[in-house]
Amino acid sequence: MLYRELLQPGSKIVLAVADGLGGLPIIGGFTAMELASLPNLDSLARKFPVGALEPIGAGITPGSGPAHLALFGYDPLKYRIGRGILEALGVGMEVRKGDLAIRGNFATLRNGVVVDRRAGRIPTSENRRLIEKLESIKEVMGIKIIWKSGKEHRFVLLLRGENLSENVKETDPGREGLPPNPPDPLTPEASFTSKVLTEVIKRASEILRDEPKANYFLLRGYAKLPHIPTFEEKWGLKAFGVATYPMYRGLAKLVGMSVPDGPETYEEALKLLEENWEKYDFFYIHYKDTDKAGEDGDWRKKVEALERFDSYVPRLLKEEAVLAVTGDHNTPCIIAGHSWHYVPLLIANKRAGIPTAWHFTERETLKGGLGLRPSKDLMGLLLATASRLKKFGA
Amino acid sequence: MLYRELLQPGSKIVLAVADGLGGLPIIGGFTAMELASLPNLDSLARKFPVGALEPIGAGITPGSGPAHLALFGYDPLKYRIGRGILEALGVGMEVRKGDLAIRGNFATLRNGVVVDRRAGRIPTSENRRLIEKLESIKEVMGIKIIWKSGKEHRFVLLLRGENLSENVKETDPGREGLPPNPPDPLTPEASFTSKVLTEVIKRASEILRDEPKANYFLLRGYAKLPHIPTFEEKWGLKAFGVATYPMYRGLAKLVGMSVPDGPETYEEALKLLEENWEKYDFFYIHYKDTDKAGEDGDWRKKVEALERFDSYVPRLLKEEAVLAVTGDHNTPCIIAGHSWHYVPLLIANKRAGIPTAWHFTERETLKGGLGLRPSKDLMGLLLATASRLKKFGA
Repeated sequence: MLYRELLQPGSKIVLAVADGLGGLPIIGGFTAMELASLPNLDSLARKFPVGALEPIGAGITPGSGPAHLALFGYDPLKYRIGRGILEALGVGMEVRKGDLAIRGNFATLRNGVVVDRRAGRIPTSENRRLIEKLESIKEVMGIKIIWKSGKEHRFVLLLRGENLSENVKETDPGREGLPPNPPDPLTPEASFTSKVLTEVIKRASEILRDEPKANYFLLRGYAKLPHIPTFEEKWGLKAFGVATYPMYRGLAKLVGMSVPDGPETYEEALKLLEENWEKYDFFYIHYKDTDKAGEDGDWRKKVEALERFDSYVPRLLKEEAVLAVTGDHNTPCIIAGHSWHYVPLLIANKRAGIPTAWHFTERETLKGGLGLRPSKDLMGLLLATASRLKKFGA
Repeated sequence: MLYRELLQPGSKIVLAVADGLGGLPIIGGFTAMELASLPNLDSLARKFPVGALEPIGAGITPGSGPAHLALFGYDPLKYRIGRGILEALGVGMEVRKGDLAIRGNFATLRNGVVVDRRAGRIPTSENRRLIEKLESIKEVMGIKIIWKSGKEHRFVLLLRGENLSENVKETDPGREGLPPNPPDPLTPEASFTSKVLTEVIKRASEILRDEPKANYFLLRGYAKLPHIPTFEEKWGLKAFGVATYPMYRGLAKLVGMSVPDGPETYEEALKLLEENWEKYDFFYIHYKDTDKAGEDGDWRKKVEALERFDSYVPRLLKEEAVLAVTGDHNTPCIIAGHSWHYVPLLIANKRAGIPTAWHFTERETLKGGLGLRPSKDLMGLLLATASRLKKFGA
């Protein structure tokens, strides 16, 4: 890889991700970024270059996993993070190499047939009570069994030990009125995992037998960690990641960043970043509210979330460091979900490029000096700006 | 290769490279291109399309070698030009297929240890006197030995003959206080080259033995020519290259262009181009002063260099021909070195695209009708504009 040949020491880098940053016109033809008052971001956009990032490719709407891998400079099509892993990261579980992570749904079984795949969406408190009971299953055939509640009917089952395989049939039949599938091996090397799961399901069914709704569960999304070089191996950077949501802490851990346990607020996240400033080369900090407002389709809330984010920007600016502000993807209010469109980007450093904008908005960043590029190219720009890349050839 | 399938005869093409053309804001938020008065370039930028080229990739700062290969339409990651070759081209040596080119540094040796890797940076005149003495070593084991002085302590050693290999250990230990390395073979097929070099070093040490400073030399950057198709094979163009610096003449020769010996000035280079106008299809002409001023970090000098370049532009415009004006890379004064940023481009021909700019500057070319693209895509645009590409498919 060309970048690895060229690495040299240089300045520190801060990557500030405002989740679901950009959007589409919602009112009077304006986007939330255009409607919001963003004095700090606008002032950076006037002084430094802007541009826009395409998370994965034309028309591809990413989940948080691939979107973040791309920002961290990994090809998101090469490194696929399975659903079970993301669920485990989302509920804040530690996932180690070799672990098998599985999504679980509590379900209702009658006469051997699934009659409700979500067990009537039992409340989360019910879920916690059931998982406490299931935690009596701690080990099966030498494999450690770890349970963790999610929201409503959802939980994560994590198997830890040797010789685990993803290639097992999902027990969720996919619709009601069918019996659950047995966790059959799909390839010969999965037969051990299949036996372990068969035993786990058998013991768990006995524990849940007399529950009125959640008397069974269904498993899917079997996944192990991908083989992925660490951030330090790939970019020569000692990296620190901080986020208020477990999913994003998990993604930062996945690439080997040092990640402290949960700050509750962005203020606390900023404080952790400042306290660790001397110890690292690269800092990833995640802001969630912009995405949440977009998912809710609530443009007033998105404007507020953007303005709140803007108020924190001065604390992200450090003497001599390179600051990038962008999103992992856009979450337009009219879509009320993630989208595939170009995500606004700015790099606050005088070496970064030519300033062209008056405001930090979708429309202005499209014409900027950083260009329109895949998100996975961002790391190259950041390393160059931080003087961390030698000249290529003579 | 698609282009090769589609080639047909067409108009002539002039590629005028202003080395290190673009930059970053330096004073009042303006770049040297914005501060300069460029009436001829501005008038072309108003009439014809502009755009911008990325030399290699996101954040990759190129040396002159890869930057020029890209402009000539070669993938700079596929064809790598070793350091020794570039040094040889830089001092104006002819390099043939199979030659092994090596960077040499005069050095000071005391009791078998390198005490100065640059022999006190002896003056160039000293260097010339020493190389004249070393030229008595003309042949070793059937291999022709060619010596050429560079500046101060630098020289190039070129071996010409059969079975030469790059895979020999560099004799430069990389720092002072260590003995020089023997030129050991790193792979079995390099053992002959290793023997030749051992003998060259032995004879040369005897010649230099009584020198007060430069009593030894160190070798590194062993390189042979890459296997590279000629410009005519690749693009069907008989090409002529003209430059005032040997390095750029060497790069044009590397792809098989016809290259006359050294014009001393850009005026002379223009004259050579005009004299050879009827004989060729493609003309590469290199302007150096913009890069020199950028390397010096001197924006006044860069403004002057740009204005001087602008004054030559009318002579580059030929009836019926396609003229491209761009740089191999930018050399921003605030970086005082090459950079990775988008390089301004214009193609002066009414078939080339949509005009959008008022001035030929970094900021305006970013929004132009030629797009933002890798430098290696320029040749496709030039061929099309010159009516040299047939329709693809029916």
